[in-house]
Amino acid sequence: MGFREHLEEICQVDGAVAASVMGFDGIAIDTVTAPNQAVDAETLMIEYSGILGQVRKAAELLKAGDLTELTIGTERMTTHLRPIDSEFFLVLAMSPAGNYGKGRYLLRVKAPKLKDEL
Amino acid sequence: MGFREHLEEICQVDGAVAASVMGFDGIAIDTVTAPNQAVDAETLMIEYSGILGQVRKAAELLKAGDLTELTIGTERMTTHLRPIDSEFFLVLAMSPAGNYGKGRYLLRVKAPKLKDEL
Repeated sequence: MGFREHLEEICQVDGAVAASVMGFDGIAIDTVTAPNQAVDAETLMIEYSGILGQVRKAAELLKAGDLTELTIGTERMTTHLRPIDSEFFLVLAMSPAGNYGKGRYLLRVKAPKLKDEL
Repeated sequence: MGFREHLEEICQVDGAVAASVMGFDGIAIDTVTAPNQAVDAETLMIEYSGILGQVRKAAELLKAGDLTELTIGTERMTTHLRPIDSEFFLVLAMSPAGNYGKGRYLLRVKAPKLKDEL
């Protein structure tokens, strides 16, 4: 199973808008986008990649251990981000009315599988 | 019920380490801390307040609507943050093995109550 198949599986969760494998530099390796986006999910994910990098640094500095996940909820979008390794992360943007728990769970399950393919 | 009582109630959730009402400037109005902290939760919360402000700005810029919640998970600490109004937010630091869902739920329920007292 390649990147795209994993991302497509993630995008089957209720309320999914887009899923992507991205570098901490904000450059996507692959992105799967659901139709009918209300918000520019791709730009949002790029913007959040910078924030993810900052959170990772802060957590290290404060000896809180490695960053495992970041969830950002706004009125129009819930975004789950999960590091795959030191260079790449997995991100899922979804509707705030979507299945938060399942979205989060899917990233946890898929991250190690994607790591094996990087 | 005052700030402290609300924060004490939040801190009753399984795995709670500290709960605080803070300004976006990183200055706490009140903090309730559970004993036996493995990580310096107060410093972590101050550091995260800056990140919360940045996420809020990014979400506004990208028309994703107001920031409703932010969750940061690291190996040693899960931190939920939720804006109360434009100046203050509620934050709960907890063990990664703690009750994630209930912690998140409590912030959602308590934020409007704390807003009435600000």
